[in-house]
Amino acid sequence: MAKLTEIGWKEFEALPLEAKRPYLERPGGEGMPYHTLFAQQFDRPLLERLAALANRIRFISKSREGALFLKSFLPHKRAMLYFTQPSSRTFLSHLAACQILGLTTGSVRDTAISSEFKGESKEDSIRTFSSYFDMIIMRTPEKGLAEKMAWELSNSDRPVPILNAGSGKDQHPTQALLDIYTLLRSFETKGGLRNRTVTFCGDLLRGRTVRSLSYLLTNFENIRQMFVAPKELQVPEDVLAILREKNVSYDVSNDLREAVSTSDAVYMTRIQDEWDSAKGESAKIDTSRFKFGAEELALLKPDGIIMHPLPRRDEIATCCDHDPRAMYWRQMRNGMWIRSALIATTFGLENEILNCGY
Amino acid sequence: MAKLTEIGWKEFEALPLEAKRPYLERPGGEGMPYHTLFAQQFDRPLLERLAALANRIRFISKSREGALFLKSFLPHKRAMLYFTQPSSRTFLSHLAACQILGLTTGSVRDTAISSEFKGESKEDSIRTFSSYFDMIIMRTPEKGLAEKMAWELSNSDRPVPILNAGSGKDQHPTQALLDIYTLLRSFETKGGLRNRTVTFCGDLLRGRTVRSLSYLLTNFENIRQMFVAPKELQVPEDVLAILREKNVSYDVSNDLREAVSTSDAVYMTRIQDEWDSAKGESAKIDTSRFKFGAEELALLKPDGIIMHPLPRRDEIATCCDHDPRAMYWRQMRNGMWIRSALIATTFGLENEILNCGY
Amino acid sequence: MAKLTEIGWKEFEALPLEAKRPYLERPGGEGMPYHTLFAQQFDRPLLERLAALANRIRFISKSREGALFLKSFLPHKRAMLYFTQPSSRTFLSHLAACQILGLTTGSVRDTAISSEFKGESKEDSIRTFSSYFDMIIMRTPEKGLAEKMAWELSNSDRPVPILNAGSGKDQHPTQALLDIYTLLRSFETKGGLRNRTVTFCGDLLRGRTVRSLSYLLTNFENIRQMFVAPKELQVPEDVLAILREKNVSYDVSNDLREAVSTSDAVYMTRIQDEWDSAKGESAKIDTSRFKFGAEELALLKPDGIIMHPLPRRDEIATCCDHDPRAMYWRQMRNGMWIRSALIATTFGLENEILNCGY
Repeated sequence: MAKLTEIGWKEFEALPLEAKRPYLERPGGEGMPYHTLFAQQFDRPLLERLAALANRIRFISKSREGALFLKSFLPHKRAMLYFTQPSSRTFLSHLAACQILGLTTGSVRDTAISSEFKGESKEDSIRTFSSYFDMIIMRTPEKGLAEKMAWELSNSDRPVPILNAGSGKDQHPTQALLDIYTLLRSFETKGGLRNRTVTFCGDLLRGRTVRSLSYLLTNFENIRQMFVAPKELQVPEDVLAILREKNVSYDVSNDLREAVSTSDAVYMTRIQDEWDSAKGESAKIDTSRFKFGAEELALLKPDGIIMHPLPRRDEIATCCDHDPRAMYWRQMRNGMWIRSALIATTFGLENEILNCGY
Repeated sequence: MAKLTEIGWKEFEALPLEAKRPYLERPGGEGMPYHTLFAQQFDRPLLERLAALANRIRFISKSREGALFLKSFLPHKRAMLYFTQPSSRTFLSHLAACQILGLTTGSVRDTAISSEFKGESKEDSIRTFSSYFDMIIMRTPEKGLAEKMAWELSNSDRPVPILNAGSGKDQHPTQALLDIYTLLRSFETKGGLRNRTVTFCGDLLRGRTVRSLSYLLTNFENIRQMFVAPKELQVPEDVLAILREKNVSYDVSNDLREAVSTSDAVYMTRIQDEWDSAKGESAKIDTSRFKFGAEELALLKPDGIIMHPLPRRDEIATCCDHDPRAMYWRQMRNGMWIRSALIATTFGLENEILNCGY
Repeated sequence: MAKLTEIGWKEFEALPLEAKRPYLERPGGEGMPYHTLFAQQFDRPLLERLAALANRIRFISKSREGALFLKSFLPHKRAMLYFTQPSSRTFLSHLAACQILGLTTGSVRDTAISSEFKGESKEDSIRTFSSYFDMIIMRTPEKGLAEKMAWELSNSDRPVPILNAGSGKDQHPTQALLDIYTLLRSFETKGGLRNRTVTFCGDLLRGRTVRSLSYLLTNFENIRQMFVAPKELQVPEDVLAILREKNVSYDVSNDLREAVSTSDAVYMTRIQDEWDSAKGESAKIDTSRFKFGAEELALLKPDGIIMHPLPRRDEIATCCDHDPRAMYWRQMRNGMWIRSALIATTFGLENEILNCGY
């Protein structure tokens, strides 16, 4: 088995993502993740196993007894939530996921009140957290920091797992997991996640969500992908190159209504103007035709679904919120369940939960 | 029974407060509140029932076994504390109230680190919290937001209860509850909360506390109200109009010492200069005669009490702090007990706790 | 026994530190601390007893059953962490220490969101916390505030214990405890903490850590102290005066390498330029010869140790981090254990834990 203790940092960093995967697995864990850093760590069997575990946790938690049973799994463990990038949704979702399993938590949500103002390196800060906690859930603007810390900790006296809750522009693996879980659940009783058309709409250039989900969808059978965006914000060529390499059918367009009428899932996204330069280029782009409202809703198939990673601005009109096909609120709650499943897996509990009497 | 799912938002919003009450009750809860939004939801039987429950919780918690028994009620539930207005007292009091009943908690205390900077609406933010939590305790500067969210959530897939911990200038119902609870406790063995004179002093114009407490006191028999303030900060006419309508005796004055000598309870308040315009009008008002010190203490009846919602500045001299009639510290702790009682009630536990073996 | 209720504040404040100690003890606690304010409260028997308790807690927590057993001690208690000075390390370490014993916690980490902006005094704020919590762990920039609050609370209806987690430039007693605990552990199987040379290096003028540890080391037999620093940052004369008074051998130098080669422990510290005046005098001092790197490591005895209170900048090169003599990461984790031991002691649990079946 590949071990992070048997490879230098530079050598590990230089590996392609696929080759990194075995190094991040739980020892003896049959391919289950220990450190969760990339969407690319997850293949179809693993995604389906996590979805099954999330379903189980969701079901067990419905009763008081079940909820207390789940809380009895990890009350002896403590998780650190290190969020130096603004986020209440992702923070609270991970917090709730920890609480479901009984973990106690600590958090740093603002570097202004941390030791870093005294000149400490981020590496030292995170190693500090590993002294007091048994898992580190981190969200930072620095690309690659989660990966570096996974290597560092695995080579230290306290090899605690890292869960990447968003790092820079590149990765946000648990968002991709919850998106897949939502698709799996939505089509569970309708023939499954195969032979579908998934449309992405909005800012496809700068959203890491689209990039990861597009990749994970290639694990599933005959999923056609449509990319609908203003030309300045269209999906990057490297995403399409992967689809071609994997023989996945796709289309690029600027006509949302046409796409909606043939889609099983429409994945709307926000214009990510926080990545704009000072010139504010987003404001100059005409995005008016890339919003989902009453007219688009009327075009959607009866069992089609609308997704959004949230937060939204006006990409989806609030008049759609009460339609049963609006899946974005449930998608958000799914995030809590799939993160619970992932954390349970990190600590090697998946079989115990899947096979429990509940 | 009136249900929020059977009335539109505009129609509900337009109702008078008294008519809103039944919509906010716990289904099958015999008039007990589910959403807590206004002081006006509480009549005398309900106030006395909550006070009895708070007494019970306070008593049970004295022993280690009792404290653990209380914590066994809601460990399977999670509460969200959404505080976008500065407050440590109200925040910590609600936090402790949750912890007493075993609830785990999450919090957002600063909108600067939340998703709102990405342009999300407050409604979406709160709906997000409802995805991860089983109760939302909120304090915001926006008038009416708690009410709007109660309606929204009751009409969603996740109808979790809202507890209003202060909304704008208008309502702060749990403060009014703790004030009434403190009066009930203080006079419990001295003939009860009837035939009393309660004096309000300080900034009676802008404090929502005075407004709510004055209203709730009209539920009790023969409580005379005195309002002592500089004329620029005297109690608003609409508060007095309610007293006249309910045939409650009152007086308006600017002589604190005279009022103290005939009062059973003196409720001091802070000058709320955070509501000043940029001109800082408060600084121009002579408030020197509206402070409680050694001389006022000497005039107070032997079983009179001094109250204050805290924080204070110099309205009450610290030399009064160790006098047994200074009730403001106990008043603050009472807030924790009455909030525990309210949360227990929200989850339908009042009978179980009142009738338990302890 | 000396009691805080039997002495006025002014009189108590004026006592020398040694004379204050008995006032801070747990009633009936055989010299164990109730309020923890100064390093000077701890003599050798007490330090060794706390170290033994910390060892026990560390050992018990290794198993799941043990961890749950420890959590069963204080689940009925709530601790408040009041940190108005930036600190993630000390905050998280105390948080984890509370969680190990099952305490639930609340925190205020930023006075900007607290009531203080409304003009409340710090004394009132802390008294507020005492209404809702059973212990207050506080870190503030104000010298003497922890001491004042210990007196205030002991003279109130809610005499909850104060744990000083750092107050101004003067005291940080739990840092001194963890340093002593680290030294005791490091030499436990090598003849104990006696007949040793301990070298302090860096900013010895402004670090309260050095001051406290130097004092506590005088409790142990034949510990020679070396102070290595640029002359502008050398150890203050009053620290040396104490050593002379207690007949402790010491030396003052500016040659780190020579000191390292004869030391059993090298305690590196950061230049504390946050105490600089606006002129930034630290930047003008040549500190280049006061850093620990590969060459110093080569000079260190085989069973010597390197310590640092962290956070570090470049006082210790990261190339030393994986050397078994680098004790600073374990030192940090020791802080969690010794703080657990101290909190357990505050609540009178030391015998129960030391004598338990684990």
